[in-house]
Amino acid sequence: MSDSINELLSFQDQGAVEFCFGCGADNDKGLKLKSYWGPEKSAVAKFQTDTHHCGGAPGIVFGGLLASLIDCHACNYAVALAYRNDGREIGSGTKISCVTAELQVTFLKPAPISLPIELRATVSRAEGRKSWIHVDAIVEGEVKAYGDVLVIRLKDVSSG
Amino acid sequence: MSDSINELLSFQDQGAVEFCFGCGADNDKGLKLKSYWGPEKSAVAKFQTDTHHCGGAPGIVFGGLLASLIDCHACNYAVALAYRNDGREIGSGTKISCVTAELQVTFLKPAPISLPIELRATVSRAEGRKSWIHVDAIVEGEVKAYGDVLVIRLKDVSSG
Repeated sequence: MSDSINELLSFQDQGAVEFCFGCGADNDKGLKLKSYWGPEKSAVAKFQTDTHHCGGAPGIVFGGLLASLIDCHACNYAVALAYRNDGREIGSGTKISCVTAELQVTFLKPAPISLPIELRATVSRAEGRKSWIHVDAIVEGEVKAYGDVLVIRLKDVSSG
Repeated sequence: MSDSINELLSFQDQGAVEFCFGCGADNDKGLKLKSYWGPEKSAVAKFQTDTHHCGGAPGIVFGGLLASLIDCHACNYAVALAYRNDGREIGSGTKISCVTAELQVTFLKPAPISLPIELRATVSRAEGRKSWIHVDAIVEGEVKAYGDVLVIRLKDVSSG
């Protein structure tokens, strides 16, 4: 494993994304999702919903929240992978930014609000500045929803 | 137009969905999206984002928030349509509930956070308990993102 891999700090706390409502470390009113390296270059995250994150029925997680977590986890993962592939620490040198172009979420079963949601992301395909990221949203070992996200790396701009 | 159509109160305020983080009228920490009938049996909504709803860059709306609004608007619309097709006021008689099975969002351009987002929903296809809803997210007349949502009506349960 390269020296440039920080396994202790989340991608967001290393500066992958600063502001985002879903995961920005600096957004105090946001969800503050934290993503980390997982096994074999995957990325993992855990999120504990609060009672007000429910969907149309009490006790069930809002689908849009799952979509938000999947989107953020995928996007941060794509940013982290881009730094890693460059052999750089996240946030070092020229800033790498990614945007979501397409987000597809399939809801299999309701996710109960009382239990932590585990997110596991892997790369399905990569081509030039495009990455297709697959994210499973898991509760107690069962996939409750999954997402396929097309993330595009923006052309490099000066970090100045 | 049928007597059962209330054009002044939002679907949510008529009790289509009570709790949801995205649109529940009773969820004080939620987004409180309000959906209304639009022209030709379509549904419309307007949402004004706040500064903390930004995405990975300041001033740009978080994609997961757009996905959440699209999901809620589509789901409430499907519920409202089901009541309307039954010739009933929303919330009257046996409760109609719908869930999102698939949510696909395509992001075309960044949506600026300072301007209201207009959502316009139409039915692409309906088959049994399934509805495919298309939602455009529009800012100043331009579609910034669109969603295609497969919504499933749950089997009727007693409203008791």
